[in-house]
Amino acid sequence: MLLLHLSDVDEASWAERMRAALAPYPVVRRGDAFDPADIAYIFVWKPKPDAFDGLVNLKAILSLGAGVDALLRNPALPDVPIVRFVDEDLSQRMSDYVVAQVTMHHRLYTRFRADQKARRWSQLYPPAASETTVGIMGFGVLGEDAARRLLALGFSVHGWSRSPKAMEGVTCFAGADEFEAFLAGTDILVNLLPLTPETAGILNYETFSRLRRGKLEGGPVIVNAARGGHQKEADIVRALEDGTLGAASLDVFEVEPLPAESPLWDIENCYVTPHIAAISSEKTGVVYFSRIIKDHEAGKPLINVVDRARGY
Amino acid sequence: MLLLHLSDVDEASWAERMRAALAPYPVVRRGDAFDPADIAYIFVWKPKPDAFDGLVNLKAILSLGAGVDALLRNPALPDVPIVRFVDEDLSQRMSDYVVAQVTMHHRLYTRFRADQKARRWSQLYPPAASETTVGIMGFGVLGEDAARRLLALGFSVHGWSRSPKAMEGVTCFAGADEFEAFLAGTDILVNLLPLTPETAGILNYETFSRLRRGKLEGGPVIVNAARGGHQKEADIVRALEDGTLGAASLDVFEVEPLPAESPLWDIENCYVTPHIAAISSEKTGVVYFSRIIKDHEAGKPLINVVDRARGY
Ligand SMILES: NC(=O)c1ccc[n+]([C@@H]2O[C@H](COP(=O)([O-])OP(=O)(O)OC[C@H]3O[C@@H](n4cnc5c(N)ncnc54)[C@H](OP(=O)(O)O)[C@@H]3O)[C@@H](O)[C@H]2O)c1
Ligand SMILES: NC(=O)c1ccc[n+]([C@@H]2O[C@H](COP(=O)([O-])OP(=O)(O)OC[C@H]3O[C@@H](n4cnc5c(N)ncnc54)[C@H](OP(=O)(O)O)[C@@H]3O)[C@@H](O)[C@H]2O)c1
Repeated sequence: MLLLHLSDVDEASWAERMRAALAPYPVVRRGDAFDPADIAYIFVWKPKPDAFDGLVNLKAILSLGAGVDALLRNPALPDVPIVRFVDEDLSQRMSDYVVAQVTMHHRLYTRFRADQKARRWSQLYPPAASETTVGIMGFGVLGEDAARRLLALGFSVHGWSRSPKAMEGVTCFAGADEFEAFLAGTDILVNLLPLTPETAGILNYETFSRLRRGKLEGGPVIVNAARGGHQKEADIVRALEDGTLGAASLDVFEVEPLPAESPLWDIENCYVTPHIAAISSEKTGVVYFSRIIKDHEAGKPLINVVDRARGY
Repeated sequence: MLLLHLSDVDEASWAERMRAALAPYPVVRRGDAFDPADIAYIFVWKPKPDAFDGLVNLKAILSLGAGVDALLRNPALPDVPIVRFVDEDLSQRMSDYVVAQVTMHHRLYTRFRADQKARRWSQLYPPAASETTVGIMGFGVLGEDAARRLLALGFSVHGWSRSPKAMEGVTCFAGADEFEAFLAGTDILVNLLPLTPETAGILNYETFSRLRRGKLEGGPVIVNAARGGHQKEADIVRALEDGTLGAASLDVFEVEPLPAESPLWDIENCYVTPHIAAISSEKTGVVYFSRIIKDHEAGKPLINVVDRARGY
């Protein structure tokens, strides 16, 4: 039996689609009458603290989030495999966000908008994409998708991951030892890391001050599409104000919703969006998770299982 | 002998590079002492009215501009072939501009910026690129390059040209008869047409009102990267104000520099840049035009010759 435990999304709609996809396999929701001992799978998004109570026969946790940092912080998390969401449609939407922010800054949006407000006709030719390096930290499913699209646009692309990687056309860096070299060649820094103890707070003043200067008018730029816990917002404010950064696009925040008193709202070269970079689609999500359950029930191994020791 | 006649760019620098590329073939500038009858080629950018005086033995005009609309209006234009600039680097820069504007509007920039100013956290998920159609009018060298890059980003792409065209993944429309059908499926309209009597003023209120509505929050969007003569600015103002258009990105204007009193400067959802979408690079320009001259002197036919009857 599958239990749905989805907060902040339309759980009823997910349940209906999931029932259709899995029938005759039983699917229940929190309010329904069922014996917790019958639950073999739980499908979660922002689960409440008591979400796993009584699930003594659980085989796997299915996470609608691609990132599992919040889930791993749940003190009552059962010791069963966690399957995270990996999905082409999600990658596409994330790349949509990343490419829009990268190209906007590459084309010096902040400068031309200021000129427009001043009714100033001042010609300046942005560099060609090929003269600009986008550094992607977190070179996994999402990082690689963004890289492919940025390469097609002609950008020079650098990637940074924990273990060594290779992709044609990309200069790859790995591990803490190569972080400085990665930053030193980067004009626009895109964060697509998972949030772990190693990556928390990585978007800090020291990181910003190691980025390449002199290529993009106004200074290097950061784009954070991963988690608010990656960024030190006080450092971002300081770096935007003293010119260490030319601009920042932030979709995630230390506290969400971003509090009304945050200074980030008002900084001209800070571009705030309300955690909307990429949403999981019901259509592809149901196909993915129903397939996981069917395959596992048929004896096949689970895929995209989180490594709890690594934290992602 | 090659005569350079380049206004508004660093002619001395072009001359130095061109001499190096063509040596021992002679290259002169306007101020130099030479017999006009010795000039076989003239390389022009914004030529003065008297540019062609006395050039009785001219074999070809080389145009640094990809668009030749202004050149063709020159009343003293000699009746010799005009070779226009076709260059990968120029196409890349134009696509940089086009992609940056398209993705910004696709990601609902205007709406999220207004929310940011109001310190409003209001989640709305933009459609995936695959759910959005970019219609490119003018499906030549630049239009096709932009299409290839937009396809790599996952957009649905429509193209419109005078004669029928085909590109894998693109829905192609041709001629005045198919213009309405082309517009009816377009969410973001990109203009990369040459300016001719047929295309002048094509970005008008009627065109805007035929674009697809209901896909992009705020309304359909236009991006003009071709010529100011394509657009009726009074119609753009009206359409932005009454919601027929959700936004406009304009790099070119009826009068340039855009006059300080133009209302376009002040419209929140109008994005003005000062004709900087794409600049011809000296490096690739010298390679291209020196090769044209050498090949022609060696008896090969000219390439990329303008069809005066068509006007491009
Ligand atoms: N804001 C949103 O709307 C949204 C939506 C979806 C996802 N996300 C976030 O995006 C994150 C990435 O997703 P994904 O699917 O691409 O994850 P993934 O496939 O697991 O990739 C993670 C990448 O980060 C690298 N990495 C992890 N720890 C590292 C460290 N300490 N140093 C250097 N590199 C490290 C990994 O290196 P290896 O390759 O060596 O393992 C891998 O390349 C998610 O965790 C989630 O937080 C945000
Ligand atoms: N703002 C800037 O910085 C900048 C820089 C460079 C160029 N430009 C402009 O961009 C324009 C396009 O350059 P390009 O190199 O791509 O030109 P191109 O290769 O000649 O392509 C022109 C395209 O427009 C189509 N077309 C022409 N007249 C048409 C009509 N009446 N109806 C429908 N389609 C028509 C052509 O159709 P066919 O394929 O059937 O011939 C062709 O597809 C230039 O003319 C120039 O004005 C602007």
